[in-house]
Amino acid sequence: MDESTPRSLRLGLLYSGGKDSTLAALLLEDFYDVTLTTATFGVTDDWTYARDTARSLGFTFEKLELDPDVATEAVETIRTDGFPRNGIQRVHQHALERLAGMDFDAIADGTRRDDRVPTVSRAQAQSLEDRYDVDYIAPLSGFGRQAVDRLVESTLDVTVGPSEEITRADYEAELRALIAERDGEAALGSIFPAHEQTHVTGVQDWNR
Amino acid sequence: MDESTPRSLRLGLLYSGGKDSTLAALLLEDFYDVTLTTATFGVTDDWTYARDTARSLGFTFEKLELDPDVATEAVETIRTDGFPRNGIQRVHQHALERLAGMDFDAIADGTRRDDRVPTVSRAQAQSLEDRYDVDYIAPLSGFGRQAVDRLVESTLDVTVGPSEEITRADYEAELRALIAERDGEAALGSIFPAHEQTHVTGVQDWNR
Repeated sequence: MDESTPRSLRLGLLYSGGKDSTLAALLLEDFYDVTLTTATFGVTDDWTYARDTARSLGFTFEKLELDPDVATEAVETIRTDGFPRNGIQRVHQHALERLAGMDFDAIADGTRRDDRVPTVSRAQAQSLEDRYDVDYIAPLSGFGRQAVDRLVESTLDVTVGPSEEITRADYEAELRALIAERDGEAALGSIFPAHEQTHVTGVQDWNR
Repeated sequence: MDESTPRSLRLGLLYSGGKDSTLAALLLEDFYDVTLTTATFGVTDDWTYARDTARSLGFTFEKLELDPDVATEAVETIRTDGFPRNGIQRVHQHALERLAGMDFDAIADGTRRDDRVPTVSRAQAQSLEDRYDVDYIAPLSGFGRQAVDRLVESTLDVTVGPSEEITRADYEAELRALIAERDGEAALGSIFPAHEQTHVTGVQDWNR
């Protein structure tokens, strides 16, 4: 295929249905043939919310099935640590590797400049690219928190709320469910700090 | 002004007329009211090539006048070092500060993930944002070299050649002229490593 034809480059984006990954999709859609992919261990059906948002925005969607052994490992890490950072980082790395193993010219995620977790260092990005012969792109990594917030406000329709009430599909929902199964709901409060999540409900008309 | 209206956010992008800053402009134009700005010390008229390219692509253009004292300082640094890295870095920082002092909601440049110089660290970005109450955005900082090359191939019409023959407007052209004035043309070869520059001549029709 002629690489110089419009949008001939196929890109798979890790998609949660939240504001960051939706903004990443909009930034890339003029340049790549974008497929939104939502990762799941098959523990909950939270991924279907991301699928529905992806489709309502007109994007191609694919479910990305993760290795349940990685969930087990991440849950053990989180229970031992008492905080989710390292476990979620491990799952993100695994999800990127799964995505890189699919038939895309480029893969991407919605990580921002100011994100604490998950992060992908320059060395990790290069390693991923070398091992899988794929481009790894983090379109929001050059945007700070305020820049993203302003863009979201001018571009997206968003529902915001505490992370335990918002239906979206990042790894946290499934990891929470697995930990609640083992240790009970009460354990979640001390492990997962309260933070706001977002669920995108639409794109403002002018932008499409 | 209502921040939620289409492209109500004003962004100034440091623009050289080369492929990286042109790609950065295309990535941002759906989200910001973009003005391309080309920095000059008033030493040569290389900035006019960037202006002409900016206008041919349909962008608003503004000349960004730099402080000649910074040129003098950068030239001394480069002559002492024997390589251009630190001098160019100093000029880039100054250009960003000048741009940040103008009336924009956000400023941006075309630095990539794999660039050695100029670079803007996360701490430098945050400092710029805090001091000038502006968002600093590096839209290509999440793209590696190969990803940029592939996008350029599928998006832009580009002329490529050795840096001494290509008409574009980065800081190098003016710094080279100042050094040649002091030490003669022969000095340039040992200070500036030979590398390829690009000058964008157009955008492929499908993308606009």
